[in-house]
Amino acid sequence: MLVAVIGDGFCSSETAQLAEEVGRQLAESGAVVICGGLGGVMEAACRGARGAGGLTIGVLPGRSRQDANPYVDIPIVTGMGEARNVIVVSSAQSVIAVSGGYGTLSEIAHALKLGIPVVGLGSWQLSKDGWDKQVGITVATGAADAVRNALALAKA
Amino acid sequence: MLVAVIGDGFCSSETAQLAEEVGRQLAESGAVVICGGLGGVMEAACRGARGAGGLTIGVLPGRSRQDANPYVDIPIVTGMGEARNVIVVSSAQSVIAVSGGYGTLSEIAHALKLGIPVVGLGSWQLSKDGWDKQVGITVATGAADAVRNALALAKA
Amino acid sequence: MLVAVIGDGFCSSETAQLAEEVGRQLAESGAVVICGGLGGVMEAACRGARGAGGLTIGVLPGRSRQDANPYVDIPIVTGMGEARNVIVVSSAQSVIAVSGGYGTLSEIAHALKLGIPVVGLGSWQLSKDGWDKQVGITVATGAADAVRNALALAKA
Amino acid sequence: MLVAVIGDGFCSSETAQLAEEVGRQLAESGAVVICGGLGGVMEAACRGARGAGGLTIGVLPGRSRQDANPYVDIPIVTGMGEARNVIVVSSAQSVIAVSGGYGTLSEIAHALKLGIPVVGLGSWQLSKDGWDKQVGITVATGAADAVRNALALAKA
Repeated sequence: MLVAVIGDGFCSSETAQLAEEVGRQLAESGAVVICGGLGGVMEAACRGARGAGGLTIGVLPGRSRQDANPYVDIPIVTGMGEARNVIVVSSAQSVIAVSGGYGTLSEIAHALKLGIPVVGLGSWQLSKDGWDKQVGITVATGAADAVRNALALAKA
Repeated sequence: MLVAVIGDGFCSSETAQLAEEVGRQLAESGAVVICGGLGGVMEAACRGARGAGGLTIGVLPGRSRQDANPYVDIPIVTGMGEARNVIVVSSAQSVIAVSGGYGTLSEIAHALKLGIPVVGLGSWQLSKDGWDKQVGITVATGAADAVRNALALAKA
Repeated sequence: MLVAVIGDGFCSSETAQLAEEVGRQLAESGAVVICGGLGGVMEAACRGARGAGGLTIGVLPGRSRQDANPYVDIPIVTGMGEARNVIVVSSAQSVIAVSGGYGTLSEIAHALKLGIPVVGLGSWQLSKDGWDKQVGITVATGAADAVRNALALAKA
Repeated sequence: MLVAVIGDGFCSSETAQLAEEVGRQLAESGAVVICGGLGGVMEAACRGARGAGGLTIGVLPGRSRQDANPYVDIPIVTGMGEARNVIVVSSAQSVIAVSGGYGTLSEIAHALKLGIPVVGLGSWQLSKDGWDKQVGITVATGAADAVRNALALAKA
């Protein structure tokens, strides 16, 4: 099972704690964590997963494997900037968004377009005339609920 | 001036009329239209621009230039799937979103992340705790208003 | 007709003259020139095409349209680094390689893989055990011969 | 240590045996194998690595993780077609090319452009006027020699 954790490269310590707990519980469930490989939410999720003995993949936007946070086991170096966001979510069987800005929003949108389930923790609310409110995102109440949903909804 | 028009590959005739009018007015203002090169909003915008003597660029997700709608002058063939959305907006000096689904949402998010102004016509409403409502998108009242805003806000 | 001219971002004045002549003759034949948008061979080809009233497209590796050489009419901003090489050749109906280093070699290889004809002017010689010598590249004797071949071989 | 093994998606049984031996010896040396994730050389290298208890990463060109050969542990789904070749080599600390066609040639060229060492086993011979013959590729005499060179030359 491969689950993406997405969110800002810089975040509050509260958000980082949440992301670390998500990473830890994913690893304890035997899931591999994939993320954008940088700081903030990505680093916290990798730290949590690594602490629980899990494997972590970081899909980097830049050209150097040295850009990866210290808890990434396998850095994937794309050199493709924002386009790497597509790879993070396409590679995942489900996605957990922890807060996040516009980059995270692009990942949520790509995932929903590709039919990959997205679970949100304090992340974006989306709406559009003629669509249901909170389109496409499963809102979770905490780290445990997010991980449970991400594993239950994961596509084959 | 290079302006992106983004939206669904399939759309209602009302939305198509709006997109065509946007394309026409962009071309009349001397702007080149760039889009995803397929049908729906993309085709309508190109048809409008072409009808007014404008130049149109279509950045295609697939591997064949034959995928372009008949009003694309210059098909750019990426073979990169969803990642081509990044190119559509990065190449533009401003973006007009006409309605649109998840793919359009990903383009809006990439544009905002990259600091490229986005004008919306019946498109997504975004919100997030602690952010202002309708984050980052300038809402337009019609085709003329959208084009006026897109030209006024365009980055160098 | 859309023809790619590929080669180094830095080149000798002899190579630049050759590329400029290729660009000029392509434009005189009514072809649009597509290239990587930077200096050297790319700039010379665009200068030649522009001087003959042609249209030029530059597919840039970086994130800024300001990176384009001054003879690019339409800068396509990819932010995808080396991966933009794939787009340069996939978008073309045939490719003319003027000298060139490893980046050019990658474009030649991508073109041949995708079935897009490649004409070489002082460019790479390729061989492999069990393959014919000068695999896949049509060697031209000068600018006029290169343009003639690129137009004759161009795919639909 | 992350080493790429590149080569054709379809290959002779001799080439497959060579690739499998390369994969096996890489895993025995503690290296992780990264490849394009499909059949032929890629599958043989993964089978070899997996048989020796190693970890394997497959960077897929298509949109489905189901495209991966059965010996890939971590499928990275790019949906980016040929552009995924850039990611295979950028992510590696060195590259071993086992025979191979135009796609492999594009990977060799991208690697050399990015300064990533390439070791060849019956792969392409490159030359260019004014460059040394067999530019940039270290020719190996067999699987053991290829692995030894790839580990010795690997960049940090």
